[in-house]
Amino acid sequence: MTNKASPDLPIGVFDSGVGGLTVLKAIREQLPRENLLYLGDTARLPYGTKSPASVLRYAMQATAHLRERGVKMLVIACNTASAVALEDLQRALAPLPVIGVVEPGAAAAVSARPAGRHLVLATEGTVRLGAYGKALRRLDPAASVRELACELMVAQAEEGWTGGDIATAIVGEYLRPMMAGPSAYQPDSIILGCTHFPILRAAIRSVVAESVSITDSAGTTASVVARELSTRRLQRADGAAATLRLLATDGASRFARVGGTFLGDALVAGDIELVDL
Amino acid sequence: MTNKASPDLPIGVFDSGVGGLTVLKAIREQLPRENLLYLGDTARLPYGTKSPASVLRYAMQATAHLRERGVKMLVIACNTASAVALEDLQRALAPLPVIGVVEPGAAAAVSARPAGRHLVLATEGTVRLGAYGKALRRLDPAASVRELACELMVAQAEEGWTGGDIATAIVGEYLRPMMAGPSAYQPDSIILGCTHFPILRAAIRSVVAESVSITDSAGTTASVVARELSTRRLQRADGAAATLRLLATDGASRFARVGGTFLGDALVAGDIELVDL
Repeated sequence: MTNKASPDLPIGVFDSGVGGLTVLKAIREQLPRENLLYLGDTARLPYGTKSPASVLRYAMQATAHLRERGVKMLVIACNTASAVALEDLQRALAPLPVIGVVEPGAAAAVSARPAGRHLVLATEGTVRLGAYGKALRRLDPAASVRELACELMVAQAEEGWTGGDIATAIVGEYLRPMMAGPSAYQPDSIILGCTHFPILRAAIRSVVAESVSITDSAGTTASVVARELSTRRLQRADGAAATLRLLATDGASRFARVGGTFLGDALVAGDIELVDL
Repeated sequence: MTNKASPDLPIGVFDSGVGGLTVLKAIREQLPRENLLYLGDTARLPYGTKSPASVLRYAMQATAHLRERGVKMLVIACNTASAVALEDLQRALAPLPVIGVVEPGAAAAVSARPAGRHLVLATEGTVRLGAYGKALRRLDPAASVRELACELMVAQAEEGWTGGDIATAIVGEYLRPMMAGPSAYQPDSIILGCTHFPILRAAIRSVVAESVSITDSAGTTASVVARELSTRRLQRADGAAATLRLLATDGASRFARVGGTFLGDALVAGDIELVDL
């Protein structure tokens, strides 16, 4: 293992599937010169309903594969994997810098709503671990936090049901009970604690008041990546065009079709390289 | 491998997760004396969006485990695995009898609607393989068939959203476009081609006319099991109370909570034995 990585090495981005492409998209927008290598563990998704032991084992295998290919930094672009495995991955992959999405998302929400009443929308796995609650209260002891598992919204995002009555109906089924009661107890901050949920932002906004902030991790995580690259002097210089490589462990055609929605760019199956972990 | 299994050995029932419990339930109702051993491959679910190669590999590993434990017959209580892997599993596990759910479901639908206009609701994997279409046309050359992937209904069933406006809205989003057009072209038969969907039967009925038949595989598969046991003289005699053992590859607490809905019986995590494939 080298102690000093080459700036031309890609930033590795790991997710259980295609949701992490919302984070990849934000990194690409903020850091257009950087080479990027994305791995979606589509053979074993979703992580959100699996046990912590399984998620940890899968994440270890997937990130080891990215390290072997050569990356200068690793982003765990999956809330469940960040919640379960971030510290273990940081230890196992040291000195490679490893960045998760939970801390940046929590920091952005605290910044938007000091002493806020946060409602975290996430997968069952992320909620069970309470990772956002811990991060929010550490950053802001005055914060109050509720966490809500919204498994159906993961499938909804993958199906591309992002608008119209049906999108509002599903999102509302989860959110309306949370938004009831005296206004002093209603959330004033919603945190999109799953990388699938940014594409449901408009549907979520349609069922909550304008005064409620909606925070996702993608943009803030990209800012943390930019800062870390700068601190470690690992930014890539101007030069040849940046490359984007996409790896998946299963189902290239589904990855391309569903992933295009999350990346905001059309993909074809030929763009996706299948790897066996 | 023995050529003649003991009637006291359990019937093995294999599924990717908890949906196959609808089939187990039907077998238990028709054959209350039989010992049953169920394996849900919850660590790798869902199969419906995975590639055929992955589904085949997973099904081979899981069924090999059931055979090692000792079963007298094997039921593939997962439509995707039946569509992908039934013939391979029958070859690999011979002389153990192996029964899938696609053929029994197709036979029941053809019997209910000769020369029918069938609409098969299934996972993406089952639809891609066209297994129901092949089985229906083989049984009834006059049948017409459309197959529709309804991934969100899998998540809906697991979330327990089986009734009320939201259940009708999701099911209707898939079905209403299929039910439009001149009545001579509308389906007169709906086949529940995923083991999750029987618990959505009432919601499906609420958006289609009473004249449309709704068929699931669970009851007919149980009848095929009963007939095969009889033919092979493998029925268990009266005697000690029948046993039911439940195995899963991950997440006993989620298995118990979600699985109880499908089995129609409360389960607790302590009832579920975790196995590592």
